[in-house]
Amino acid sequence: MSIRAGIVVTGTEVLSGRITDRNGPWVSQRLLEIGVDVAHITVCGDRPRDLAAQLRFLSDERVDLIVTTGGLGPTADDLTVAAVADFTGRDLVADPVMRQTIESVIRGWRKYDDVLPDAVVAAIDKQALIPAGAEAIAPVGTAPGVAVAATDDVPAILVLPGPPHEVHGMWPAALATSAVEDAIAGRDSYDQHTILAYGLSEADLAVSLRRAEGVVEGFDELEITTCMRGGELEIVTRFESSAAQSYRDLEELILTRHGDRVFSTDGEPINEVLARLLGSRTIGTAESCTGGMVAAALTDRAGSSAYMLGGVVSYANDVKSGVLGVPEDLIADLGAVSEPVAAAMAEGARRVLRSDIAVSTTGIAGPGGERPGKPVGTVCFGLAIDGRPTVTVTRKFPGDRGAVRRLATSAALHMVAGALRE
Amino acid sequence: MSIRAGIVVTGTEVLSGRITDRNGPWVSQRLLEIGVDVAHITVCGDRPRDLAAQLRFLSDERVDLIVTTGGLGPTADDLTVAAVADFTGRDLVADPVMRQTIESVIRGWRKYDDVLPDAVVAAIDKQALIPAGAEAIAPVGTAPGVAVAATDDVPAILVLPGPPHEVHGMWPAALATSAVEDAIAGRDSYDQHTILAYGLSEADLAVSLRRAEGVVEGFDELEITTCMRGGELEIVTRFESSAAQSYRDLEELILTRHGDRVFSTDGEPINEVLARLLGSRTIGTAESCTGGMVAAALTDRAGSSAYMLGGVVSYANDVKSGVLGVPEDLIADLGAVSEPVAAAMAEGARRVLRSDIAVSTTGIAGPGGERPGKPVGTVCFGLAIDGRPTVTVTRKFPGDRGAVRRLATSAALHMVAGALRE
Repeated sequence: MSIRAGIVVTGTEVLSGRITDRNGPWVSQRLLEIGVDVAHITVCGDRPRDLAAQLRFLSDERVDLIVTTGGLGPTADDLTVAAVADFTGRDLVADPVMRQTIESVIRGWRKYDDVLPDAVVAAIDKQALIPAGAEAIAPVGTAPGVAVAATDDVPAILVLPGPPHEVHGMWPAALATSAVEDAIAGRDSYDQHTILAYGLSEADLAVSLRRAEGVVEGFDELEITTCMRGGELEIVTRFESSAAQSYRDLEELILTRHGDRVFSTDGEPINEVLARLLGSRTIGTAESCTGGMVAAALTDRAGSSAYMLGGVVSYANDVKSGVLGVPEDLIADLGAVSEPVAAAMAEGARRVLRSDIAVSTTGIAGPGGERPGKPVGTVCFGLAIDGRPTVTVTRKFPGDRGAVRRLATSAALHMVAGALRE
Repeated sequence: MSIRAGIVVTGTEVLSGRITDRNGPWVSQRLLEIGVDVAHITVCGDRPRDLAAQLRFLSDERVDLIVTTGGLGPTADDLTVAAVADFTGRDLVADPVMRQTIESVIRGWRKYDDVLPDAVVAAIDKQALIPAGAEAIAPVGTAPGVAVAATDDVPAILVLPGPPHEVHGMWPAALATSAVEDAIAGRDSYDQHTILAYGLSEADLAVSLRRAEGVVEGFDELEITTCMRGGELEIVTRFESSAAQSYRDLEELILTRHGDRVFSTDGEPINEVLARLLGSRTIGTAESCTGGMVAAALTDRAGSSAYMLGGVVSYANDVKSGVLGVPEDLIADLGAVSEPVAAAMAEGARRVLRSDIAVSTTGIAGPGGERPGKPVGTVCFGLAIDGRPTVTVTRKFPGDRGAVRRLATSAALHMVAGALRE
């Protein structure tokens, strides 16, 4: 029996496109991981009527669980709890334990007199209201979560705050409420596996999947989705435990046909793969068109100081020469976007940073700057590894300035990983 | 009369949270700009039943226009056009002009014999199908868009592809279809203005907005939303043209009370503001905990090579000393996360990069690495400007590693802007 959920993201700033919602995707991934199927995500502004309509829609679609995020703050446009109370036909009642918790959080922030200002008391009172009979979930910030059990008429509803770190912090307690536990009790046990490849096109994978359809027994039991992102092809397969052998056969077929392109069979991102491949070796960067993005990607991972020494962003040619020691003649003769300059940048970075490995980027991110034979999107890479000859490559990436910079950053990381795998 | 729209984003990879949807926010912003109110955004996977349910929901909610994105590809799970045809009670018919267009795009990619392979022909045939009587919109990639006029029963439906650059490229032609033109003909003329502030809390702004409610005539005509992002408070106000004076009064009140925190009254991002403030001066960076993110932000803007010379990512202490010349004793005595080290990094970067200005970051992004008196989130900044004494500041940011790095990056940019504004 499949358990289905719907997610309601509230907030005018999300609906109007001014901020990117991070809660819908996060909650969706967590639900999928535990075997709950997500049918719909809906986004609405801070308008009670639209929020009520979305709750009604999901209820009519017979989802087993609705998860809402946002709208739990102290101000008048934070109306999710009231809307859920109204929708489930419950009164709002004060929860004295939560009221106490919120007050002590707020007193911890700021020295107040014994008597709190009226506005603060009003804010605490509002956030301590929950629908009668619902379970309150202790706040991570100041807003408690709420879990309302399913009835014959409405599905279970889990009400979470808006700030992502509060959602993440509250999630384990939210899953442990009896309202949510009951709602998802009948879920299937699903496995989900992720294969990541670089330099493999969706079209080429499609050919392999058609082949798999003919030779992998139980292929139809596998729910496969693919997605291209930053030059990486992500192949995600969900299946019930009974189809595990079919998945193993599919994975073997993909590895046989595209093993040289696959860098991860367990969803491990390139950053982690790279950390493992580096072992005890250190790395540094020399960046022009990516302007620090390769270094930022390498330092994104906690613990990266064990191998990442640093980098030089040599955006100006004077910095390429002055700091990295790229010969000025080379730049004058061949242009800054050339493989010899990329090689000299990588070697210069190794020397200056004293790293075992250095990777470099120099290219034309656009929109301007194209040269004869070097259209916008052209990027040269250099890779210097202790004890090996320096290698270079030139790539041409599609898209706007942002896309070219992202694709070049990804390409630099994969160039290093590819060389270390050899 | 207010014209309302709903946006349907299709794709299992979006619903499952594996890729961030960029189309919903983009379409929402474009609609708001032309005075169309967006009531709902919904996300569904590649399942015809769920897509139909969302179309039905938006139709029942009486929106005037539905915009869909995604699901126009050549494969079986691309089903949006068929779902819209079914929903509007129309047959799918081949559009010979579009078929010709798609075929010539595909022939332009790859040398084919005169006779195309069957699989390619099938793909072209599928993408050239449109609901009977609908308007086809010429493809940017290979998928045409479709606009279906409203009837008494269903709103107008605009069907757009999934890749963001195709959505952007097709938008002007989509707005010019008679189906869309008719649907949005009665829209209000709205103005939208954005004020951006740094170092201003939502709570402090709320106090000012309560004050404005009392003194700004026509305050109720202003639809104000606020959003905190990377330490920046964004204040967006929408209003009908008739309320322009009320908005001017509100803006004046905000500037009077928070003028020292406001860095933009026309939505200009910090990057652009900084470029203007720099004038002919050059800038460079020295980064530890932000690991290249400040340099990446400074080079994000097209044309930044006019003032951004480069940066040093001195993640390891040896690089702080070896490349930037930070005295080893200073690091040994005070720790790398200290204001004197931040000052020496900024001054070192100015010297090495030969820039007029340099900003530095050194901090503890976490999760590990805290020291006595220096909890995770502590970041020291240095700012060296030609002809001025170097200044430093220490901040403590909340959140996880990613949040600390983002907030520190934003703080570094605003530290420079603040100093140049003085």
